[in-house]
Amino acid sequence: MKKFRLFTPGPCAVPEEVLVEMARPFRHHRTDWFKGLMKQATEMLQQVLQTRNDVIIITGSGTAAAEAGIVGCNPPGSKMLTIEGGKFGERWGEIAQQFGIPVTRHAVEWGTAATPQIVSDLLKKDPAITCVMVVHSETSTATACDLKAIGEVTHAAGKLLLADCITSAGALPLKPDEWHVDVTITGAQKSLMLPPGLGFLGISERAWQVIENNKNAHAYYLNLNKARKMAKESDTPFTPAHLLVRGLVKALSILLEDGMESVWKRVAAMAAATRAAGEAIGLKVFSKSPSDSVTALCPPAGITVKDLRNELEKRYGIESAGGQDQLKGKIFRLGHMGYVDEMDTVLAIAALEQVLYKMGHKFDLGAGVTAAQKIFAERLA
Amino acid sequence: MKKFRLFTPGPCAVPEEVLVEMARPFRHHRTDWFKGLMKQATEMLQQVLQTRNDVIIITGSGTAAAEAGIVGCNPPGSKMLTIEGGKFGERWGEIAQQFGIPVTRHAVEWGTAATPQIVSDLLKKDPAITCVMVVHSETSTATACDLKAIGEVTHAAGKLLLADCITSAGALPLKPDEWHVDVTITGAQKSLMLPPGLGFLGISERAWQVIENNKNAHAYYLNLNKARKMAKESDTPFTPAHLLVRGLVKALSILLEDGMESVWKRVAAMAAATRAAGEAIGLKVFSKSPSDSVTALCPPAGITVKDLRNELEKRYGIESAGGQDQLKGKIFRLGHMGYVDEMDTVLAIAALEQVLYKMGHKFDLGAGVTAAQKIFAERLA
Repeated sequence: MKKFRLFTPGPCAVPEEVLVEMARPFRHHRTDWFKGLMKQATEMLQQVLQTRNDVIIITGSGTAAAEAGIVGCNPPGSKMLTIEGGKFGERWGEIAQQFGIPVTRHAVEWGTAATPQIVSDLLKKDPAITCVMVVHSETSTATACDLKAIGEVTHAAGKLLLADCITSAGALPLKPDEWHVDVTITGAQKSLMLPPGLGFLGISERAWQVIENNKNAHAYYLNLNKARKMAKESDTPFTPAHLLVRGLVKALSILLEDGMESVWKRVAAMAAATRAAGEAIGLKVFSKSPSDSVTALCPPAGITVKDLRNELEKRYGIESAGGQDQLKGKIFRLGHMGYVDEMDTVLAIAALEQVLYKMGHKFDLGAGVTAAQKIFAERLA
Repeated sequence: MKKFRLFTPGPCAVPEEVLVEMARPFRHHRTDWFKGLMKQATEMLQQVLQTRNDVIIITGSGTAAAEAGIVGCNPPGSKMLTIEGGKFGERWGEIAQQFGIPVTRHAVEWGTAATPQIVSDLLKKDPAITCVMVVHSETSTATACDLKAIGEVTHAAGKLLLADCITSAGALPLKPDEWHVDVTITGAQKSLMLPPGLGFLGISERAWQVIENNKNAHAYYLNLNKARKMAKESDTPFTPAHLLVRGLVKALSILLEDGMESVWKRVAAMAAATRAAGEAIGLKVFSKSPSDSVTALCPPAGITVKDLRNELEKRYGIESAGGQDQLKGKIFRLGHMGYVDEMDTVLAIAALEQVLYKMGHKFDLGAGVTAAQKIFAERLA
C-alpha cells in the first residue's frame, strides 16, 4: 500500500472532487456553458483575492502571469525596481531584462524579506522608477514580506506595485485593494487547490491605464489588453485550458465555503505548528521572516536533505521540496497550501520524526507532534 | 437523456480513458516519475509528428507555441513572410508585427491555400526574407495546402519554413523531416485527443542554430532556448500543466496503437464522406482546397448557420463550429479530429439530415448517410 502525500509548496494537493469534476464529459469552450464557468471562476477569484478589480485568467504557469504583468506595466519610459531575495524574485528581474525593460535589481540576503524601508530608500535614490515588484511570499526561501507596509510606501510615492502572490494568495492575509497592490499575481497550483496550468492577475484601474496605453508591448499570447477585452464577455482570446477552469470552479467553491479568514487562520496555525515542531526536535527554521504558506527547515548535522527527503517519500509517500540554487542541500520545505489541513500537518511532522529517529538524530520522539498539537488546540476552535 | 458530441475542429473529443487517467492520485512534477512521463510523451510526439528533431512541450495554447517559434526564429536582421488565407494565418502575421519583426503579410482569398508558386514568387521578389510561415490546415476555412511542395521551394531558397500544423498534425500526412519543415507547430486539443493547455514544436537543427543565436529575443516564458535546455533532462523551465502531460501519454498511446498511416487514412475517409454527404443533400463545400481534418459546409438558402447549429446541439448534443470573422454566418464546420471514428461521422451526418429535414430543406432523406457509407465501404478495410 503506497499513498502519495503532496507537501511540496506547489503543486499542492488537489481535492479528489476537483479531479473527478475534470473527468466529466468533455465539452467545448466557446459556449454559454463555459462562459458561465468563466464568470463564476472570475467572481470567486475576486473573493479569494479580496479584490473588486478585474481578474484575468491565463493558460500558463505563474511565471506566464508575472510576465504578462511585467511587460504590460512597463511601456517605453518606464523603469522597474525588483527586490530579490530568492529564486522567484530573481526571475522577475530576469524577465524585465529579457524584454529590455530598464530595471534596478536589488538583492537582499536569501531568507530575509523586502522591507518598506528598503523600498522607500531606493525610490528616493532613483525617482525615474515607475513601478516596483516584490515577492509577497518567496517560495524558494519560505519568506514573507509586509506587503501592506510596502504598499503604503509605493502608493505615497505614486508608483505602481506588482506583487508575486503565487504562494501567498489563498494562504496569507491579502487585501490588494486596501493595500494599494496594483497587480496581484498568482497561480492555480498552490493554495487554489488546482493542478498547474492557469495563472491569474488582479489588476487595478491605475495599472490598466498604463497597460492600455502600452499598445506596442512585446506581448501577444500574454497580452493583457486582449485578455481584458475578451474577459468582459467571460471569454478568452486564445483557447484556454478549460478543463482546469472547470476544476477551478469546484476548487474555489470548496475554499470559499471555509471563508478566507478561516483559511488564513488555519494556514497560519499549520505553519506555526510546523515551526514549533521543528524547533522541538532540534531543526532550525531557515527564514528570518517566515512565510505561513511554506516552512523551510535545516536538517540536523550529519543528515543530508537528499536522504531525508528520500526516506520521507519511500516510507510514507511524502513529497517534500529541497532547496533551490544556493540553498540546495541546505533546507527542505513543507507546504501548508492546497488540500491540506491540521491533521495532515500532524501526519507530516510524525513522519519526519520517524524518519529522523531511524536516521540517528537524537531528540524526544513525539516532541514535535506534541508541540504542533498544542498550537492547534490553542489557536483553532 | 442528453449526450454531448464534440464535432468542433478543436477542442475535439477526448477518450474517457484519458480523462480518467488525469483523475488518478495527484503527484509532483519535479520527480523521476514525471520525467519518465515527459520522456515518453516526447518520444511519442516524435512518432506522431514523424520527426527525429527535438520536440518541445509548452504549457499554453497552440498560439503560445506559434509565438515561441515566430519570436525565436526571427533575430534582428530577419524578415518573415506569412501567407494568410484565414483567421490563423492572420494571427501569425499579427504576432510578428506585435513583436516588431519585419514581415510581409501576403493575403490569399479565404478558402484558398498557399501554393508553392506564390511562395516562390514572393521569395524572388524580396530576397531579404529569411523565414516563411504557412498554415498547413487553416481551421477557419477548412483549407489545406501542399506543405511538401512549399517545403521544396523554401528549402531550395535556403529559407526557414515554419508551419502551423495545429489542425494537421495527427490528421493529415505530415513528414517534416522529409519535407524540410523547420518548425512544426501543433497543439494538444485537436487530433492528439487531449483537453487544451499544451502546445508543441518540432524544431530542426537548422532552426535551432538561429534560435540559439537569438539570445535577446523578447521571450521568457516562451523562450525556446530555456525549454530545450530543460527538455534535455525531460524537464521544463516552468511548472508545466503536468496533469495534461499525464493525459497526453495515454492519448498518444491510443493514437499510436492505430499507427499514423492508418489514422491518416481514416481521417481522409471521414472528410471525403462528409463532403460527399454534404453534396448529396445539397450543401456546398466551402473550401477550394479542402482540408481532411475539418469540413466547412454552406447551409442551404433560407436556413441560418445559427439555427442549424442550435438545432444540432439541442436535439442531438452535437457541438459544431460556425464561421469566424468574414465567414460568420456563411459556413458551419465539422471536425474529423480527435476521438471520432467513421461511425461517429455517420451519426453526425444523420443528425444533420434530421435537422435540415425538420427545418424544411428539400433533399432525399438518407442520401447523405448513404454517400458516406459508400465511401467507408470502398476506402476502409
